[in-house]
Amino acid sequence: MGNRFLIVGGVAGGASVAARIRRLDETAIIIMFERGRNVSFSNCALPYHLSGIVEKSEDLVLMNPGKFKEQYNIDARVNSEVVKINREEKKITVKNSVTEEVYEERYDKLILSPGANPIVPSLEGTDRNHVFTVRNVEDISKLNNYVQHREVMDIAVIGGGFIGVEVAENLRLAGYNVSIVEFSNQIMAPFDYDIVQVLQKEMIDNGINLIVNDGLSKVKEGFIELNSGRKVEAQAVVMAIGVRPETTLAKDAGLEIGELGGIKVDHNYQTNDKDIYAVGDAIEVYNRLTRKATKLALAGPAQRQARAAADHMYGKNHRHNGVIGSSCVQVFHQNAASTGLNEKAAQMAEINYDFAYIIPGDKVGLMPSSNPMHFKLLYEYPTGKILGAQAIGKGNVDKRMDVIASMITMGATVEDLKELELCYSPIFSTAKDVVNLAALVASNLLYGEYKQVPVTKIRELVENNAYIVDVREPSEFEMGHLNNAVNIPLSELRQRLNEIPIDQPVYVHCRTGQRSYNAVMALQNLGYTNVYNVAGSFLGVSIYEYFNDQTTNRKKILTNYNFA
Amino acid sequence: MGNRFLIVGGVAGGASVAARIRRLDETAIIIMFERGRNVSFSNCALPYHLSGIVEKSEDLVLMNPGKFKEQYNIDARVNSEVVKINREEKKITVKNSVTEEVYEERYDKLILSPGANPIVPSLEGTDRNHVFTVRNVEDISKLNNYVQHREVMDIAVIGGGFIGVEVAENLRLAGYNVSIVEFSNQIMAPFDYDIVQVLQKEMIDNGINLIVNDGLSKVKEGFIELNSGRKVEAQAVVMAIGVRPETTLAKDAGLEIGELGGIKVDHNYQTNDKDIYAVGDAIEVYNRLTRKATKLALAGPAQRQARAAADHMYGKNHRHNGVIGSSCVQVFHQNAASTGLNEKAAQMAEINYDFAYIIPGDKVGLMPSSNPMHFKLLYEYPTGKILGAQAIGKGNVDKRMDVIASMITMGATVEDLKELELCYSPIFSTAKDVVNLAALVASNLLYGEYKQVPVTKIRELVENNAYIVDVREPSEFEMGHLNNAVNIPLSELRQRLNEIPIDQPVYVHCRTGQRSYNAVMALQNLGYTNVYNVAGSFLGVSIYEYFNDQTTNRKKILTNYNFA
Repeated sequence: MGNRFLIVGGVAGGASVAARIRRLDETAIIIMFERGRNVSFSNCALPYHLSGIVEKSEDLVLMNPGKFKEQYNIDARVNSEVVKINREEKKITVKNSVTEEVYEERYDKLILSPGANPIVPSLEGTDRNHVFTVRNVEDISKLNNYVQHREVMDIAVIGGGFIGVEVAENLRLAGYNVSIVEFSNQIMAPFDYDIVQVLQKEMIDNGINLIVNDGLSKVKEGFIELNSGRKVEAQAVVMAIGVRPETTLAKDAGLEIGELGGIKVDHNYQTNDKDIYAVGDAIEVYNRLTRKATKLALAGPAQRQARAAADHMYGKNHRHNGVIGSSCVQVFHQNAASTGLNEKAAQMAEINYDFAYIIPGDKVGLMPSSNPMHFKLLYEYPTGKILGAQAIGKGNVDKRMDVIASMITMGATVEDLKELELCYSPIFSTAKDVVNLAALVASNLLYGEYKQVPVTKIRELVENNAYIVDVREPSEFEMGHLNNAVNIPLSELRQRLNEIPIDQPVYVHCRTGQRSYNAVMALQNLGYTNVYNVAGSFLGVSIYEYFNDQTTNRKKILTNYNFA
Repeated sequence: MGNRFLIVGGVAGGASVAARIRRLDETAIIIMFERGRNVSFSNCALPYHLSGIVEKSEDLVLMNPGKFKEQYNIDARVNSEVVKINREEKKITVKNSVTEEVYEERYDKLILSPGANPIVPSLEGTDRNHVFTVRNVEDISKLNNYVQHREVMDIAVIGGGFIGVEVAENLRLAGYNVSIVEFSNQIMAPFDYDIVQVLQKEMIDNGINLIVNDGLSKVKEGFIELNSGRKVEAQAVVMAIGVRPETTLAKDAGLEIGELGGIKVDHNYQTNDKDIYAVGDAIEVYNRLTRKATKLALAGPAQRQARAAADHMYGKNHRHNGVIGSSCVQVFHQNAASTGLNEKAAQMAEINYDFAYIIPGDKVGLMPSSNPMHFKLLYEYPTGKILGAQAIGKGNVDKRMDVIASMITMGATVEDLKELELCYSPIFSTAKDVVNLAALVASNLLYGEYKQVPVTKIRELVENNAYIVDVREPSEFEMGHLNNAVNIPLSELRQRLNEIPIDQPVYVHCRTGQRSYNAVMALQNLGYTNVYNVAGSFLGVSIYEYFNDQTTNRKKILTNYNFA
């Protein structure tokens, strides 16, 4: 008889461990226990059932126990909760939630892949039956049936992270009035406050009622009440604040828990009990950029951990690269992707960084499918080592992010990225791709070829009457411009130098930063020593101001500008 | 007065040198001479005018001399052919093709960016006025006007490289009957013979008359005659055999020409005359993978060379990475991309290589926009160093190729690629991306975990009555299968072991290679020592056989299979 491998939890982590063990060993006895009704389903595709992109909830189920048995000779048991680990006798106690049967199973190796649970705060009304979470196929079915068959018009999604945003989008696509309530000052934490404004604009433009800086206080029949006292109509509420590693079983068994609340594992995904491994959303992983533990609820890393754990049980070495955290999301017509560290993460890790923020075309401009892409590249100062990036646009942001993820993984600098030779055809990209351009800007900044000022500082400059030159053509200027900006088109710059003061800082922008870069270089070469390029230029500034212009009464810094 | 920089040729190389010099030096005198009517146009977008994707030919023009003057203070002279270089006096002779004026200009630095010319063989009839080449805006306008205003129904494109294929596609989209005549045994040389069949199928499926292994012999009125004697109707003919570096001026001036016929340059893009630089399609570049000189007619590298050359003139160092050659193309509904070395190039360079060929889904299978992607990864044996890749599919092949290009550039191995943490969301990719999967297969092969046989060998196996197991389900088997293949679904494998001979080689395939991989591992673990996975599996084999099945009468190796 072979060794006995018991696996707690299916989906990405558990099922991958099981399949890998089978490939390594035909004699292994493999039993997988899943508390829910489905042992293998597409977690990340759940929200797409709400819009009908994934028509039937059954389609979300990838493998059933019958297939696991037939194809892999794996015993997958659903409705089976593992309630206890007896480490001394190497046994677990299992409870069947349908038959109520309780029984024990002996293991040689135990693998924990219990995942993470949605956080539901104990607030008034969160136990009402029109409050939902989204963790598995049953959850999404329940939510979908409720909104379709009750008289639901208005839905509130609490939390503006990945799940909240995807759920909100898909419900909106299905025709509901959707509000998002986000406690912090922005949705989608992997993105910085400047670039995320593109997504926030997209949400608003598509009819989402986006509320930030406010939290849920009470759930009532037909509406919710927020901390600010504001009431929001909602006949259904989705809780998507975040997830918490499922560690009860591990804790009860005396397994070590890390500082962030996840199961602690070593290089080989072993817990402090060498016969118990843990993988997936329940564990803490090592971030190779911050060199600290982190939590990461992503399917790809879970699958890699699973394979590594299985390999280790069979004496195969594996490399442990740590994680960088790469993710992407579609929000209506905008795609967004990020990898590595953003500004907040770099600050938290006390890494000295700088960044380039550019908005070039994602394809050759004359191609009908060309669109501007917002792209932010973070790098370490003074080494130029790439730390992370974020991109938002209608085109292939994921492609650019995958390149950056590759470069980070290989320890590349902006100098490497600048020279990268990527695929080019006018319908796919530009001869210098977005990532090349970002690296060019970054290396220019690093070498001190010119200076820049971020979009986040422009309001202050305008309010303080700084000298801002807008080098776009007059026709562009007339369509909207910064208050007090002086319009000197690049094409007239050299003739109108006398208008530009040499004894004070000069801030230059155009539409996307290309013409202003040339203007800045010209001015410097003509003796101006205190010239700044506006990172993100007019496109960046106007989108940065949009959300607050729409939702607050603060003084506008844009003259004659129509955002639509 | 500043230094005098004279530039021969505009477009990607010349215009980039000019712009960079201006950014570095406001006092420089920069004069750019272009033989044609336009000094800056989108070379790569030319074919898209034929289908109307780029509606007006004027839109192909990016910058005119007025803009160069205004925005960059660059003197761009069109219709101006540089006919002679006087190296001793550092002067050039220019001839204005409109006014016929001939004059001299003095230079401090001369930059050659003359590009490459379409090759037109001296055959009977190639001088007729219905024979066209595609090099610039005038060419494409001429071709477009001819086919639109004469009674043209049938067009023959000679040459199946990038330009030939793009011209053929766009003419087909415009409604013409298009033939491609390719001298070698396949179109699109950057792709290997196995994977290129996907593109050849796409051409045929979209009504292109694709002729390989044949060459142009004569152009007649209304038709062409091929070497085989075959006649093809054609009221218009496009010559797209290839390009040849434009070196006449350089040669006449005694500048060194390389073995491949391009201008020879050093690390800094200087010719053997230190005051003369050369960049773009006219030069030979260094291939970092083969460590040999190569020619590369691509816009991205030209722009990088231009920047490096300008920087060098101003005492700035730059890194010279050599080239790897990354490119992509759209062919109707299929996208194709490649980077680095293919099999032919690796063989020519005498590099010991192996490859993985997989056809996974490009997105999570339940997403409506998911499609199979053909992906081929070449790596060095025994180091596992990545050498190149090719991908063809309806989805984002360029994204996968850019990742591989990044990894090659950073010296990565398949082990690095396997662990790469890329962006994942079901609408963008799969948790293990195509590139991760290819690397997993490659590392399995490298470590000897299992063996594979390429699609190119399957015909021989079938003809020799090898033992082939098809582990798909019976319903799939009935829709078409390899002659003599035995259908033992993966789900029945362990029960039907007695049917599989242990004393002879066993070849296993499924639809895409995933199930057969599990079957191969199971068989090995059950004592079978001579088992092979069919790389590319049924999908790969059937597409590999398609073109010859359609165009020749050779014996079919597929039973009951309907390609449509």
